[in-house]
Amino acid sequence: MLNIGVIGYGYWGPNLVRNFVESEHTQVLGVADKAATRRHLVEARYPHIQTTSDMRELLANPTIDAIVVATPVSSHFELAMEALKAGKHVLVEKPLASSSEQSERLIDEAARRKLTLMVDHTFVYTSAVRKIAELLAKGEIGQPYYYDSVRINLGLFQHDVNVLWDLAVHDLSIMQYVLRGDPVAISATGMSHFAANSENIAYLTLFFPDNLIAHIHVNWLAPVKVRRTLIGGSRRMLIYDDVEGSEKVKVYDKGIHVSDTPESVHQFRVNYRAGDMWAPQIDNTEALKVEVEEFVNAIASGREPLTGGEAGLKVVRILEAATNSMALRGQVVELAQAQGAAL
Amino acid sequence: MLNIGVIGYGYWGPNLVRNFVESEHTQVLGVADKAATRRHLVEARYPHIQTTSDMRELLANPTIDAIVVATPVSSHFELAMEALKAGKHVLVEKPLASSSEQSERLIDEAARRKLTLMVDHTFVYTSAVRKIAELLAKGEIGQPYYYDSVRINLGLFQHDVNVLWDLAVHDLSIMQYVLRGDPVAISATGMSHFAANSENIAYLTLFFPDNLIAHIHVNWLAPVKVRRTLIGGSRRMLIYDDVEGSEKVKVYDKGIHVSDTPESVHQFRVNYRAGDMWAPQIDNTEALKVEVEEFVNAIASGREPLTGGEAGLKVVRILEAATNSMALRGQVVELAQAQGAAL
Amino acid sequence: MLNIGVIGYGYWGPNLVRNFVESEHTQVLGVADKAATRRHLVEARYPHIQTTSDMRELLANPTIDAIVVATPVSSHFELAMEALKAGKHVLVEKPLASSSEQSERLIDEAARRKLTLMVDHTFVYTSAVRKIAELLAKGEIGQPYYYDSVRINLGLFQHDVNVLWDLAVHDLSIMQYVLRGDPVAISATGMSHFAANSENIAYLTLFFPDNLIAHIHVNWLAPVKVRRTLIGGSRRMLIYDDVEGSEKVKVYDKGIHVSDTPESVHQFRVNYRAGDMWAPQIDNTEALKVEVEEFVNAIASGREPLTGGEAGLKVVRILEAATNSMALRGQVVELAQAQGAAL
Amino acid sequence: MLNIGVIGYGYWGPNLVRNFVESEHTQVLGVADKAATRRHLVEARYPHIQTTSDMRELLANPTIDAIVVATPVSSHFELAMEALKAGKHVLVEKPLASSSEQSERLIDEAARRKLTLMVDHTFVYTSAVRKIAELLAKGEIGQPYYYDSVRINLGLFQHDVNVLWDLAVHDLSIMQYVLRGDPVAISATGMSHFAANSENIAYLTLFFPDNLIAHIHVNWLAPVKVRRTLIGGSRRMLIYDDVEGSEKVKVYDKGIHVSDTPESVHQFRVNYRAGDMWAPQIDNTEALKVEVEEFVNAIASGREPLTGGEAGLKVVRILEAATNSMALRGQVVELAQAQGAAL
Repeated sequence: MLNIGVIGYGYWGPNLVRNFVESEHTQVLGVADKAATRRHLVEARYPHIQTTSDMRELLANPTIDAIVVATPVSSHFELAMEALKAGKHVLVEKPLASSSEQSERLIDEAARRKLTLMVDHTFVYTSAVRKIAELLAKGEIGQPYYYDSVRINLGLFQHDVNVLWDLAVHDLSIMQYVLRGDPVAISATGMSHFAANSENIAYLTLFFPDNLIAHIHVNWLAPVKVRRTLIGGSRRMLIYDDVEGSEKVKVYDKGIHVSDTPESVHQFRVNYRAGDMWAPQIDNTEALKVEVEEFVNAIASGREPLTGGEAGLKVVRILEAATNSMALRGQVVELAQAQGAAL
Repeated sequence: MLNIGVIGYGYWGPNLVRNFVESEHTQVLGVADKAATRRHLVEARYPHIQTTSDMRELLANPTIDAIVVATPVSSHFELAMEALKAGKHVLVEKPLASSSEQSERLIDEAARRKLTLMVDHTFVYTSAVRKIAELLAKGEIGQPYYYDSVRINLGLFQHDVNVLWDLAVHDLSIMQYVLRGDPVAISATGMSHFAANSENIAYLTLFFPDNLIAHIHVNWLAPVKVRRTLIGGSRRMLIYDDVEGSEKVKVYDKGIHVSDTPESVHQFRVNYRAGDMWAPQIDNTEALKVEVEEFVNAIASGREPLTGGEAGLKVVRILEAATNSMALRGQVVELAQAQGAAL
Repeated sequence: MLNIGVIGYGYWGPNLVRNFVESEHTQVLGVADKAATRRHLVEARYPHIQTTSDMRELLANPTIDAIVVATPVSSHFELAMEALKAGKHVLVEKPLASSSEQSERLIDEAARRKLTLMVDHTFVYTSAVRKIAELLAKGEIGQPYYYDSVRINLGLFQHDVNVLWDLAVHDLSIMQYVLRGDPVAISATGMSHFAANSENIAYLTLFFPDNLIAHIHVNWLAPVKVRRTLIGGSRRMLIYDDVEGSEKVKVYDKGIHVSDTPESVHQFRVNYRAGDMWAPQIDNTEALKVEVEEFVNAIASGREPLTGGEAGLKVVRILEAATNSMALRGQVVELAQAQGAAL
Repeated sequence: MLNIGVIGYGYWGPNLVRNFVESEHTQVLGVADKAATRRHLVEARYPHIQTTSDMRELLANPTIDAIVVATPVSSHFELAMEALKAGKHVLVEKPLASSSEQSERLIDEAARRKLTLMVDHTFVYTSAVRKIAELLAKGEIGQPYYYDSVRINLGLFQHDVNVLWDLAVHDLSIMQYVLRGDPVAISATGMSHFAANSENIAYLTLFFPDNLIAHIHVNWLAPVKVRRTLIGGSRRMLIYDDVEGSEKVKVYDKGIHVSDTPESVHQFRVNYRAGDMWAPQIDNTEALKVEVEEFVNAIASGREPLTGGEAGLKVVRILEAATNSMALRGQVVELAQAQGAAL
């Protein structure tokens, strides 16, 4: 039985606490939150869980094995680092930290202490995303041509990061899981309507090898909630709509065939193929339940979790590069260089 | 009664012919198409309309007042120019021509001969777009923050232009009509999967004055047809979904209010406002019917049509700049300079 | 080449005329309509087609082989009978006539004169309905358990029939085509809100052998257009949504399995099965195009058309029985008896 | 602080427990369930709540003020009666009991002991239904013409009741709340596909005074989940779609106007009116939270709850009559008589 302490009971914390409470392999010993109203909520729901305004009480508790950090991004590094130094395994809400430099220091600290460092890339643990990864791995889509994602809704504005760090991190972690290979360059545009240097709408293009292009549209100020990803390939295309109650993933047996390798655009002949659509059954296991088990197993075995520190670092590097590109209104940033520079 | 000759009876030509046939103010005297199968279709539907494989027969016919050009983009300039030189008024399918230089020459020729030159920016004549323009003009949306459009489907691949010239032209013409002011800079990315230099997927960001940002996503290789535009403003937000059978335009009384003019991003407090949604009744007059009347009236009065040569030129300039930016993977292109150069 | 005369150029007539004009095997020689505005519409679209206010001109024309009746229901019998007596083949808009007695007389007259009598059960000729019939015939659904259809929208109120005779006729003709066997009893309820004896909303339950139940909901006063049919069976279930632009037919590999043949309801154990969903590709050939060919072929070969007089009569018998049941607020009417009596 | 004991921790019990736990005015002292796996679930989530396999322990506990019955329908009467006899207030999951006779005995027992008897007609406490009631009360819809509801999905088959008693009870309770007046007669049809006398699909027509007609379609064997109600009136129409994430209620400013009071159906002239659609903002307070407060307040004040015994009885009477009508394949059952007989 793994004993858990949770820091932060705001928007996402309650879901983490509930899943660690309900897991057979974990129990929650304490929850820290500076806000008394949030602690009262914990106390009403779980009278047996200890609450505190000072997260250091959790770190000082020798019976606690692991710390879950569910606070604003700007505090991730400090809290995770303190927890690691206190000898605790750590699960950090996404993104891992505010910079690649911070991320690297967390990775190093965890490695040195042989502790598990994991980032809460929740979507990687959904049944839908795992099904998509399986379809792509089996070649059902063929060679991927494009990956296009829209993730927009009204709020919640974050104070310490722009919209890319809040929402695009989901798409980047999904992409990392379902696509082979890493992006080599990016171009991003965006706009701040309310506060300097904090874009509330952003568009991010990622260039991958082999003519694969990916694009993410994130927006905190949209009238409706959209969570929709299109993946087009040489054999088929799929749509992943996370807002759909059922049939979240639809595979379209559609595509085009170009008769010959054309020398010029005027010579090519396009044949369209429109076949059946197919929506595989997706089980509705809660993602956090799967993620909790991954955290438990990674700690037990000492292996790298599926969404460990390195996975978190890769995403943070793209977010950094994208923020730089946005400032230059779309100027391309080579990621190979960025990553080379970081070595 | 205005006598019309139509060049091209391919994908869009039949709609133009039908509307000119049914208008009380026009009649179609002849249709030219090089393909016999297309001419046979005209003959079956309209035994009274003369058909020909040689469009010069139409130009030589002195009873024909105006020529409609509904052919591939690469032929627009040559055909429209010949028609103008034959003294005919001209309506050209979008986009006006293959380059801004061609567009300017058409504008000059029409002006010199006092003939009407109009471009078929069809969406400007739809009831939905006219309603949106009315809502924005009345300030219902407040100050526009963003304009985001997705226009994707499977096919029809064009041989002589990339996907921006085929699909984004619609969004650019709508934007021109409903937004005040012109974009000052753009950044575009895209990818060719089948033929060199002909992107089949593209993303275009347009920067307007006053922090207005616009974005267009066009794709010839999508599994589903999407025609969806979001416009967010300081007062309200709206969605225009052209695939919807009814309720094409929805206005959301939603938004955020930032309490104070924040000095830094950490100080601002966001208040969310979520009110009613409202879908104004949209009449279902066919856009081409309205467009035909605009063409007739512009010719009769000698005034510039709503979508005249200048409107067409502005769109072509953006398409040119976007194609350049795509080649540089998103490198920003200043439009003010481009337009300054044209003066 | 079959020469066609069309009576009635109202709501549906233009679609019939267009398809007979465009077929390679037919040509339209004349259109009769009492309203001058409707005739002017014909003249604008097809200057080569003769128009008349007196349908007798069409009957008297010896070059006309077949008459299409596209007028209100109350006139079907008289016009079709006159056409048959004039030696013309006849295609009548649905329903065939206002009563089963009228329908039988038309069938007899056509048989006596060896003329083709066909009713325009349009949906039977759609690709979607034909695909559904194919799926059921192949046993994909297993034993049918229920057939449930909703067909509602705002208008068009008919003056001479209730909503069942206007809308449910579509469902009855589809049911006749895709299900084996005929209903044995029906129960109907409905309500008139505007004029005595003309229900504008109606619900119709049909009992078939083997525990198959069907239900139709029709309504002239609904705020949205719904055209949705569910078919549940022992193996799978399907949804046919005619308002969907694509994926009109979806097959769900879902169902339940009852472990044993239970003696009582308390003993049975239900196992749910939820598998993939699958939407077969449906081609988008216009139904009337297929129907025109069926009319031409039936005339040429002398065989009974797919939707001949007998098919039309069966539908009318159900409509009569349903109207009687409605007057008795759902009192069951045995159809076997009704049909027995008709023999 | 009201002390609560809950009997039954199956499908719905967890939601009731969670809401009574989180209310400021109640606390849950004990949960009874015969299944050990269900009790373990309670213990994992709420280690401070006492669990038991014998509900009599809860009744014998003098500190428990009120009992919540969340068990299969067939046990409602016995458990509620025992709880009342033990002096506890009672909240029973819907429907109140298995018969009107049982319902009346519960009402009498509660009245005699001055205890609160309430039935969990959950939907009455949703924001959407309360908004609809408000719209109808204000006359926004005008005179109601029809009320049409579809409530279908796959599962959960109930062993002790037919589908009407499981699903239609929701619609009947909503109808009771939003419409004035009671139905006077009903006609129902249905079919059992798996076990005798337990229809898994049913259609219920209710006749109200003033030509108002209502209809409910319920089905345990549908491939998709539908929860959709249409209400048409003389001024406007509305759609309530509970599966929609947002915009659950849409009001359509559509309708028809009949020019004169027509003598016969042939004389009336229909004018269609198609105006804007409007979706009022619906807050997303959980219904059970409101319901818990209603239970607390009714107990504190001694007043009849909004969904008290009488409300529950009326619904049960309709369910009884509908089951009778189904057995007679739609034979109308007069409810006035049924209710007269019960007096």
